[in-house]
Amino acid sequence: MTRKGEEKEFVKELTPKSVDFSQWYVDVIRKTDMADYTTIKGCMVIKPYGYAIWENIKSALDRRIKETGHQNAYFPLFVPESLLKLEAEHVKGFAPEVAWVTHGGDEPLEERLAIRPTSEAIICSIYAKWVQSYRDLPILINQWANIVRWEKVTRLFLRTTEFLWQEGHTCHRTYEEAQEETLRMLGVYKEFVETELALPVICGEKTESEKFAGAQKTYCIEALMADGKSLQAGTSHNLGQHFARVFGIKFLDEDQTEKYVWQTSWGVSTRLIGGVVMAHGDDSGLVLHPRIAPIQLIFVPIYTTATQTAICEKVHSLNSQILQSINSQIRSEPDFRDTYTPGWKFNEWEMKGVPLRAEVGPKDIQKKQVVLVRRDTHEKIIVPEEDLTEKVVTLLREIQEGIYSKALAFREEHTTRTDRFEEFKEVLETKKGFLISGWCGSPECEEKVKEETKATIRCIPSEGCNQVEGYCVACGKPAQKKAYFARAY
Amino acid sequence: MTRKGEEKEFVKELTPKSVDFSQWYVDVIRKTDMADYTTIKGCMVIKPYGYAIWENIKSALDRRIKETGHQNAYFPLFVPESLLKLEAEHVKGFAPEVAWVTHGGDEPLEERLAIRPTSEAIICSIYAKWVQSYRDLPILINQWANIVRWEKVTRLFLRTTEFLWQEGHTCHRTYEEAQEETLRMLGVYKEFVETELALPVICGEKTESEKFAGAQKTYCIEALMADGKSLQAGTSHNLGQHFARVFGIKFLDEDQTEKYVWQTSWGVSTRLIGGVVMAHGDDSGLVLHPRIAPIQLIFVPIYTTATQTAICEKVHSLNSQILQSINSQIRSEPDFRDTYTPGWKFNEWEMKGVPLRAEVGPKDIQKKQVVLVRRDTHEKIIVPEEDLTEKVVTLLREIQEGIYSKALAFREEHTTRTDRFEEFKEVLETKKGFLISGWCGSPECEEKVKEETKATIRCIPSEGCNQVEGYCVACGKPAQKKAYFARAY
Repeated sequence: MTRKGEEKEFVKELTPKSVDFSQWYVDVIRKTDMADYTTIKGCMVIKPYGYAIWENIKSALDRRIKETGHQNAYFPLFVPESLLKLEAEHVKGFAPEVAWVTHGGDEPLEERLAIRPTSEAIICSIYAKWVQSYRDLPILINQWANIVRWEKVTRLFLRTTEFLWQEGHTCHRTYEEAQEETLRMLGVYKEFVETELALPVICGEKTESEKFAGAQKTYCIEALMADGKSLQAGTSHNLGQHFARVFGIKFLDEDQTEKYVWQTSWGVSTRLIGGVVMAHGDDSGLVLHPRIAPIQLIFVPIYTTATQTAICEKVHSLNSQILQSINSQIRSEPDFRDTYTPGWKFNEWEMKGVPLRAEVGPKDIQKKQVVLVRRDTHEKIIVPEEDLTEKVVTLLREIQEGIYSKALAFREEHTTRTDRFEEFKEVLETKKGFLISGWCGSPECEEKVKEETKATIRCIPSEGCNQVEGYCVACGKPAQKKAYFARAY
Repeated sequence: MTRKGEEKEFVKELTPKSVDFSQWYVDVIRKTDMADYTTIKGCMVIKPYGYAIWENIKSALDRRIKETGHQNAYFPLFVPESLLKLEAEHVKGFAPEVAWVTHGGDEPLEERLAIRPTSEAIICSIYAKWVQSYRDLPILINQWANIVRWEKVTRLFLRTTEFLWQEGHTCHRTYEEAQEETLRMLGVYKEFVETELALPVICGEKTESEKFAGAQKTYCIEALMADGKSLQAGTSHNLGQHFARVFGIKFLDEDQTEKYVWQTSWGVSTRLIGGVVMAHGDDSGLVLHPRIAPIQLIFVPIYTTATQTAICEKVHSLNSQILQSINSQIRSEPDFRDTYTPGWKFNEWEMKGVPLRAEVGPKDIQKKQVVLVRRDTHEKIIVPEEDLTEKVVTLLREIQEGIYSKALAFREEHTTRTDRFEEFKEVLETKKGFLISGWCGSPECEEKVKEETKATIRCIPSEGCNQVEGYCVACGKPAQKKAYFARAY
């Protein structure tokens, strides 16, 4: 049995969020066994608890990708240097971050191979062979894969040398179709992240300086973290014909003329897990919302030597009852470890963010009841045994909604409308969060804001593109656009 | 509409299996859009049809891996050279096949990084940090990942520079536990491959010369292909303490002494897809068994301009009826493309190995019936519309069993028991397949057989380890073991 002293030790292991947000973030991820650093610079190991969250994310997003008509495939890990260099902007953006393979066994390669920092180049070179006729279009393919970018500064989940993601790559007959697809997938991402990850997001278009290297237009979803910084949570690019022209992806159209295809690409990555930690967590650790929590309900039996058998039997039977309820599909587990006290277990599962804890002790057995404790609100709810499954289902739904609403309210509180630069700077130092401000559209003003405040334009919301009243926050001239600014990860 | 001539062309595209098995294999994979070569030596692209098969394989195996108590995780793609070199046999086995990363961006790395040719080295270096106490054991982790081996000769799915696989890596307190795990996973593979892939396998232990580089014992499952060659379809290794000692994976046992863990590793890969093609396919192309077929039932409407609307409506309604039947979970699709004739579609879906085809023409509508055609036997079955779902469910089960039984009968016909070397050689040239023969246990005799016949010992079946009657097929001395020999992929 763990002694009282050790229990306190457990809670003390986490740096409080308010004291040092960055350290709190790393502490939470490491202490909850989600991930850890390795001896390879910037590479992490995703441990089972973190990977189970990724599996839930994958399966929920994969379903949506397939429902919108896409199929999965798998393309090579390697991009020959000559291919990566074909699209000028693309290579400029990615070459500095590329890991290069130079030898196979003992022999030097004739041409260096990049480990994919993204797959446009290799996939476009393959699509050039697949596309011949308008009948071959559209091509609607997605890939789940690992990606390598040689980052100088890394942070668990948010920016690692290797990470996991999905990348969609599509080809279309017309610009309009490609643009429609770009926005469709942006919409899928928004709905997915809000529904499944309880992360409210803003969405819009990136500025020229922030767009994907090689894209014509980049759209993104951005989520506000609890420290007031924004996290780019997903991007969708209209690639125009930039890649089609250099890779020669052409088709014979119905009118018998040869044309280049119009392309899109879009992706989200394991960084979403970092977003979930930073948006919802608290001083006790993770707060997981039910839809992606690996364990949604944890049973902790409370017993003495005399009552152990009876109580564990009861917990076993209640857990089975939950698991067998076909309609609920609840991920429930009992914690029967006898090397830890109930208090220690409460702390551990709280830290791991399990949405609901069920306590069962001698008094509860007598009264035929279970004590449920919500992770998000710490609220205690006493439930008659026979209502348990139904109540758990209701509570899990309420928790999911509650976590989303809390994050949305936080974002609304931390979104400020101002065109005055002094107020803009003041807000970034104090309240933080998103700033909606006018922008004259010049790269110089965008750069000035970034240099003086470290805030960047996160996106131009679609309703902010036309007919804007107000003034550029940087130069004071009439605004051409409305923009969301924030400091960002 | 495709003209008659083109239909014939279609079928002619496949090299007959009996004429050139290797070419038939490549033709089938490329013409059915399962996979293709790329410009990167030995790397393939797995196209949507092939990848959908892999997704079905993954989900069926992942379920079994989890049911036996394992969790998924994700470890780095890179193995620092110094780690790969720690285990002497391991590096000897893998170093010649390693792709080396030497540069990150513009800067040379201090130490070369191998792209994982298998993950024992990197995972053991991480386990050394995780394992402290006997309470941390067992560690039961699996990873789905991409692997790179710089192969000289490659073949789609069977041997490619990059491939996809799962690799289990476990740590145990005792040798007995590790051995039990090794055999448990061998059993899981056998059951999985026979049930889900309709591939009957033999299983047993590898000889010293064929075992995994660094393992104490290697067990395998081997499946017989239609050309009489064996395919290693999965391996399970008892690693003993070989890696634990060099990586320092130690734990404080309950008796307060420090001990090294006992380990296992086990894996299957995308090569299984090649096995399915080679075991079950025929001159018309793929023959997919229902459990992994991306499409289990394809509807082909047969119409003239006058009957098109009515027939397509009927097909649409029958397909919906099938999809909505909750208990069936049939993967069914209608082929409404109007740029191809029904004959062309029959050929295409036959080549793609779809287990059941449903034809619906004007006569069928009148008689309220559907014509079903089995891919495996070409049998035509006329079914009243109202019995369609039920009949499809029954037929799919029969096809699954039929394909397995056929493969099993083929293996039995192509398994020969002999201890006479002349007969052994004769069989390898004519009937081919497995040879069960005595072996004195000496590496020299094993090598002699390999040199003279190109056949290797595929495995020593567990019942073949003790008290063997008969003689060594190579030297004629009394046999110590019974072994399965075959030429292999």
